[in-house]
This record gives sequence, C-alpha cells and structure tokens, in this order.
Amino acid sequence: MSQPTDAALVFLDPNYPAGRIADPTQPQILVTDEGLTRGDGVFETMLAVDGKVRKLGLHLNRLASSANICTLPIPPEQAWEAAIQTAVETLRKQRPEFTEMTVKLTATRGVSGMGSTCWVLATGVPESTIRQRENGVDVILLDKGHDAAANHRAPWLLMGAKTLSCAVNMSALRYAKAQGKDDVIFHTSEGRVLEGPTSTVLMVKIDQQTGVPTLITPRLETGVLPGTTQGAIFAGAEDSGWDLGYGPVTTEELLQMDAVWLVSSVRLITPVLSLDNQPMGQHPEITAKLTEFLLAGAH
Amino acid sequence: MSQPTDAALVFLDPNYPAGRIADPTQPQILVTDEGLTRGDGVFETMLAVDGKVRKLGLHLNRLASSANICTLPIPPEQAWEAAIQTAVETLRKQRPEFTEMTVKLTATRGVSGMGSTCWVLATGVPESTIRQRENGVDVILLDKGHDAAANHRAPWLLMGAKTLSCAVNMSALRYAKAQGKDDVIFHTSEGRVLEGPTSTVLMVKIDQQTGVPTLITPRLETGVLPGTTQGAIFAGAEDSGWDLGYGPVTTEELLQMDAVWLVSSVRLITPVLSLDNQPMGQHPEITAKLTEFLLAGAH
Repeated sequence: MSQPTDAALVFLDPNYPAGRIADPTQPQILVTDEGLTRGDGVFETMLAVDGKVRKLGLHLNRLASSANICTLPIPPEQAWEAAIQTAVETLRKQRPEFTEMTVKLTATRGVSGMGSTCWVLATGVPESTIRQRENGVDVILLDKGHDAAANHRAPWLLMGAKTLSCAVNMSALRYAKAQGKDDVIFHTSEGRVLEGPTSTVLMVKIDQQTGVPTLITPRLETGVLPGTTQGAIFAGAEDSGWDLGYGPVTTEELLQMDAVWLVSSVRLITPVLSLDNQPMGQHPEITAKLTEFLLAGAH
Repeated sequence: MSQPTDAALVFLDPNYPAGRIADPTQPQILVTDEGLTRGDGVFETMLAVDGKVRKLGLHLNRLASSANICTLPIPPEQAWEAAIQTAVETLRKQRPEFTEMTVKLTATRGVSGMGSTCWVLATGVPESTIRQRENGVDVILLDKGHDAAANHRAPWLLMGAKTLSCAVNMSALRYAKAQGKDDVIFHTSEGRVLEGPTSTVLMVKIDQQTGVPTLITPRLETGVLPGTTQGAIFAGAEDSGWDLGYGPVTTEELLQMDAVWLVSSVRLITPVLSLDNQPMGQHPEITAKLTEFLLAGAH
C-alpha cells in the first residue's frame, strides 16, 4: 500500500467547481457518516496512465448505476470529471515519477439528512499489484451462498452494485491467503461461476478442430458486477471478429477451460495459474491479444 | 437523528487508559480506513439507562465473537469498558436530561498495516425509535438470497458477525419504507425465518388446549446474529419456567403465530402489527411480561 503522503484527495463540493483539495494524511470523515457506520455507499477504482484515466466513461456510468441501485443521489458526471482531473494533476505534481495511478471514486450516503459525501483519491499502484499482473495468481473456488436466481428475485440484495459493503469479499481473500493462495472465484450455491472479490472472470475455450478461441464471461443475470475491463476487452475482441460467449458456466466447465484470467481496472489481465490446486493452461500470446483488445476497447 | 453536538466520542488509544475524548462534530477518520473503504469492521449498539449500560457483558462477548469471525484483532474488554464509561459520563455531563442513551462500539480494520481503529459513540435515543417501541411496526417479508445451510458451508460469508457491511440491510429497510412499511423480516431462499435488518425475531404460540405460551426464536444455525436482547429475554423466561422453542420456522408458520416482535437493544420489544399486510395478534400483557424477563435477564 502506498503511503498516504503519496496520495491526492479531492472532495466534490458545490462551492469548489474543480473540487476541494484536502489532506489525505488528516482525518476527513465524521464517525457518523453512513458510509462508515453502514457500508452504505458506492465506489469505482480506475487506472490512470500518464495522467489519463482509462475507461472513464464506463466507470462513471457504472458509478451512476450502482448509486441508482442503492437509491443514492450523487453529483453529476461533470463534477466527478473536474475532481478527477484535479486529483490526477495534483498527484502528478507531487509525484511526477508515478506513470500509473489508481484513481478511486467514492460516494457515501453521508451523515443522516446532510446528503452524500463524495471524493476522489489518487494514489500510486502497489508493487504487489504490478507483480500479480506479470506473475499470475493461484485461485480457490468459494461458494457465495446464493443461487443464480437470487438477483432477479431480490433486488434489495444490491447485486450488480459496487458498494462499500465488501467485508465478505475481504474475508474471502483472507481465506484464500490463509491457504497460501492469491485470489478467489465465487460461484453460486448450484456451482455457477460468478466473479472474483475484486475482479471479473474471463475464460478462453479453443476449438480442438479449428483452433479458433472463444472468449467467455459469466452472464450478468446471476448478479455479477458488469466489469468495465471485461466490457472493454469484449468490445475490442468483437471488433476483431472474435467469438464471444456469455455463461452460465459451471465450476466443472471452468476447470476444463484452456485458460482463465481475472481482469480488473488496475491489475489488468491477470492469468490464473491454478484453480483449487489444478494447474491451468498458460497462453501468453492470448493474454497479449486481450491486452491489445483492452487498449482498443478502452475509449 | 440526534445532532452531533448531542454526542460524546471516545477513541480507544493505548496512550489514554480511560480513552481519548474527541469531537464528534469534526472529521476523525482517514479516507483510507478500511472500515470506510471496505465496510471491514464490526460494531455493537447498546442502551444505557441512567448512565448504566444494559447487557454490557453480552455485547462485549458478541463484539469479540464478530471480530474473531472477521480475524480482526481488537483491544481487550477492559479498554472498551473504560472508554464506554468515559463516553457515558461525558454525555451525561453535556446532556443530563438524557435518561436513555445509545452507546455504539465500533472497531474497523483501520488503515492498512496500522492496526484497528476503535471508538465508542454515545448519543441520545431518537424520538422515532421511542415511538416504534410504543406503537409497533408494520413489516414485510424479504428473501435474503441464501439457503439455510450456507452459513455452515461457507464461513467466509461472515454470517453471525455484526459487520459494518450493512448496505443490504439498509436497502431492505428503504424497500419497506417505499411500500409504506416500517421494517423487514428476512427469510432464506427456502422460506425459513431469519431476522430483521437490525433486530431479532421473537414469536409466541399459545397452546389452544392449555393456554400455555411458548416463546420461539429462529435457530442460529441458519446464520442469524445471536441476539443479546433475545438472549436476555430467554434467560429471564427460562428462570420463570416458560417453554422455549428454537426454529426452524417457515414464513407460513410465522404468519400463524399468536404474536410476533422485533427485539433489539435500543428499540427493545417492538410488537409487529402486520406481516405482508396481514394483521397480527396483539398481546400487550405478553409484551409486558417479556419486558420483565428482559430486565431480569439483562445482567
């Protein structure tokens, strides 16, 4: 984790059109903010390269969608864009050597009756994240407890919203680490593949006759988060004429895939080395191709 | 909601054996605290009457249990007890007219690598809470998405821990309010009764032959939080020779009960007026008896 001094913090504030710069090393949040007391808020984590945020539109869309699912009024896109620009420029001045930055957007429900609390935090990208991009991850499969239809049946469960209530995701990662693994892929109670705690699952199945690969991701209907990185890769892949597939994928089918990746905005396209101790196929040439698609699709 | 000035805030701090008093109207939490960024922390909400916290031991036990489920190291009980005393005494000096107080304990995972952030916040009891105690609540039944066995199968889901990741609980309450109702009782995907978003479900079934009431609550095995108020009431009821029952209770059986209550530390024993628009039996004499049991059992 980068030190707080290696960070730029900007609050969205109607009195400051470009955002209000604040000190991230000092307390900034009231103990009564419902983002803190109830995990009641939404967020996005983005990557900026050379001062330019990737997939900004996709992230702002998803932030608005998450807020909408949570009935949380948030400021308009222009206010976010201005604060993001201020945060990125501020950190670039402080730390010109940061060619990559993590830019995190947060909107909480705030203190009761006082409106949402919204901010942008720009930091460096942790070494450990860069290492996983290059080296890949060992993954375990864990049950998320709900069935594939819960999302449709029970909209109050907020599936498909990226909320601050991530204690279970963090718990699953700790569970994996206690077993010497790096990450997790969740599945439904019936064994349908969902997503990682902080990533989307991407798979490739290569046709044994023709050698043509199909790029596959789980359906959103089961309650997974719409991945902005997956979306950009699929857009690029489609433009290049690749075959695309959308789950349902069972955990048995996952283990039969030719290759599996966890994709997310900052860790990018991380190869899965093993699943529940079973070694998975490695296809660096496909990873390179997916990276091309991501750059092409990340308008 | 009481105003922040009607509050006393005390952080647990090894340098301050009685706790470090802080200003609840000023920001006290870093934006990088994982309690805020990940809903990664645990809490307890207690009631103090005339300066004395009720069921203190039960709450400190459950806080330790929640922290243990989350692998979150927290300070020892003595540190909590000292900070609680400081917070209650401080608010009693500020607001001697507050005969009742809400005393909330929070422990977050803190900023990465810097240890947990722990505090006690004492406030007045909101008028709306007092009203619900007296008037009762209209309740809807909502699916929690998981089956009754998920808790056993998937300990990483943190069922049974009272975590800060409550966005779904708040969402369910908003869903109820949008329908003109006050509160929610969750059930499993098979229709087993679980708990309320901030309460435990208590039921009474009266034997039609003998007129003897049995006091019933759902089993913990399904992943409900062990209710401290339910525990105190059951302890008092058992001492008085009442029949006690533990679920599984289906939603169909719930609707056939002679009376249902939502119980919690601050709202106490709140009668359920209706369930999914079906009026429920009202037994003020049993409510009064349960209140006696609570006072007797709340050592």
